[in-house]
Amino acid sequence: MYRIGQGIDFHQLAEGRELWLGGVLIPHTKGAVGHSDADVLLHAICDAMLGALALGDIGKHFPDTDMSFKGIDSKILLKRSYDLIRGKGYKLVNVDSTLLLQAPKIKPFVPQMQEAIAGILELTIDDVSIKATTTETLSFIGREEGVVATANVLLVKM
Amino acid sequence: MYRIGQGIDFHQLAEGRELWLGGVLIPHTKGAVGHSDADVLLHAICDAMLGALALGDIGKHFPDTDMSFKGIDSKILLKRSYDLIRGKGYKLVNVDSTLLLQAPKIKPFVPQMQEAIAGILELTIDDVSIKATTTETLSFIGREEGVVATANVLLVKM
Amino acid sequence: MYRIGQGIDFHQLAEGRELWLGGVLIPHTKGAVGHSDADVLLHAICDAMLGALALGDIGKHFPDTDMSFKGIDSKILLKRSYDLIRGKGYKLVNVDSTLLLQAPKIKPFVPQMQEAIAGILELTIDDVSIKATTTETLSFIGREEGVVATANVLLVKM
Ligand SMILES: [Zn+2]
Ligand SMILES: [Zn+2]
Ligand SMILES: [Zn+2]
Repeated sequence: MYRIGQGIDFHQLAEGRELWLGGVLIPHTKGAVGHSDADVLLHAICDAMLGALALGDIGKHFPDTDMSFKGIDSKILLKRSYDLIRGKGYKLVNVDSTLLLQAPKIKPFVPQMQEAIAGILELTIDDVSIKATTTETLSFIGREEGVVATANVLLVKM
Repeated sequence: MYRIGQGIDFHQLAEGRELWLGGVLIPHTKGAVGHSDADVLLHAICDAMLGALALGDIGKHFPDTDMSFKGIDSKILLKRSYDLIRGKGYKLVNVDSTLLLQAPKIKPFVPQMQEAIAGILELTIDDVSIKATTTETLSFIGREEGVVATANVLLVKM
Repeated sequence: MYRIGQGIDFHQLAEGRELWLGGVLIPHTKGAVGHSDADVLLHAICDAMLGALALGDIGKHFPDTDMSFKGIDSKILLKRSYDLIRGKGYKLVNVDSTLLLQAPKIKPFVPQMQEAIAGILELTIDDVSIKATTTETLSFIGREEGVVATANVLLVKM
């Protein structure tokens, strides 16, 4: 039996912050603002996994009022979210995701992101899709004030 | 045989209106503007169900030019949309959704929303996921000028 | 075995351009800006197909730095993307999509879009859903500065 999940996450961009995307530190003039390492892509995938089984959302499991999550590597959150769906007897079939950001070009970093995510989710890189698009300078994304990620996952009962 | 559906809906927020989300009246200083009760989450789920079977969209089935839908409880629209997919021989496997809004916190109301939706869609609450996120004050959502909901559904042929 | 894919695309609107949506030329005062014919709906569907199999994104396969894609009919890009998933042994189960635009009303053109897309993807029109919504005048979409499309696809191994 299959299940579908979806996630979307938003973070502001600011100077003097690191830009973590898909578990990889990306060299850039701006970084993402947040309580954890603010990895918008990993957060969207966490939410998609949790959502597929109605386990709540990332804000419920890893609240930003909890100091133990301050600055935390989001790969740990991804692992914990995955453990929750494994605990329910499900595994992932595939992940498809999109990063919405004006800059920088993230294509050179995609294979490294796929490796990082696939390793945690017990998938091959052929099951972890990371796409990227600008908004053609439109909206807060185009003005480089923020970054958004969306993800869909397909789960199957083991 | 499975089918996938997706929905997205937008409503403006204004003072002096009720805020209906997921079939539940939420206490807040602003409410959603619309022809019906403007329940953005139920509308997104309606669209996802209709879309999975290419039955058109909510605007086709429940046009805002039709006075019979003025102020209507969107749970009625959800029931009618569900009846359409049942009439085609499909049932729902699961629903995953996200509310994008800056305020108020909707987490306390999620179980009640799940109950309302699951009852209409002949699901258990474990099959109806409602997540929520702010946009970190970005965009019209962050400025509390509007609210957005997205939904994905998985259907299976009975 | 099933796979899920998702796509999202953005284009600016400007006077003096053609408005191609879903493979159909729509009469309107504005058109979409882009390197190809800027068909936001077909691009979202291409990305969803490519993403389902982690084949990269439309920018990787059809880069806007390649002059051979200048002004190209996006139906050609849709066909090439579909050939890629067929080459991997998959076919489509269904496509669900949403156009986000303030104007014009696209409902009269939906059957023609469904025909164009279904023909290329070897589907019937009942497997190609095209929904549309305004943003209730909110955001760059509401100000008619741009148009967005989202798509989800379900693939199955042949
Ligand atoms: Zn986040
Ligand atoms: Zn609505
Ligand atoms: Zn495009």
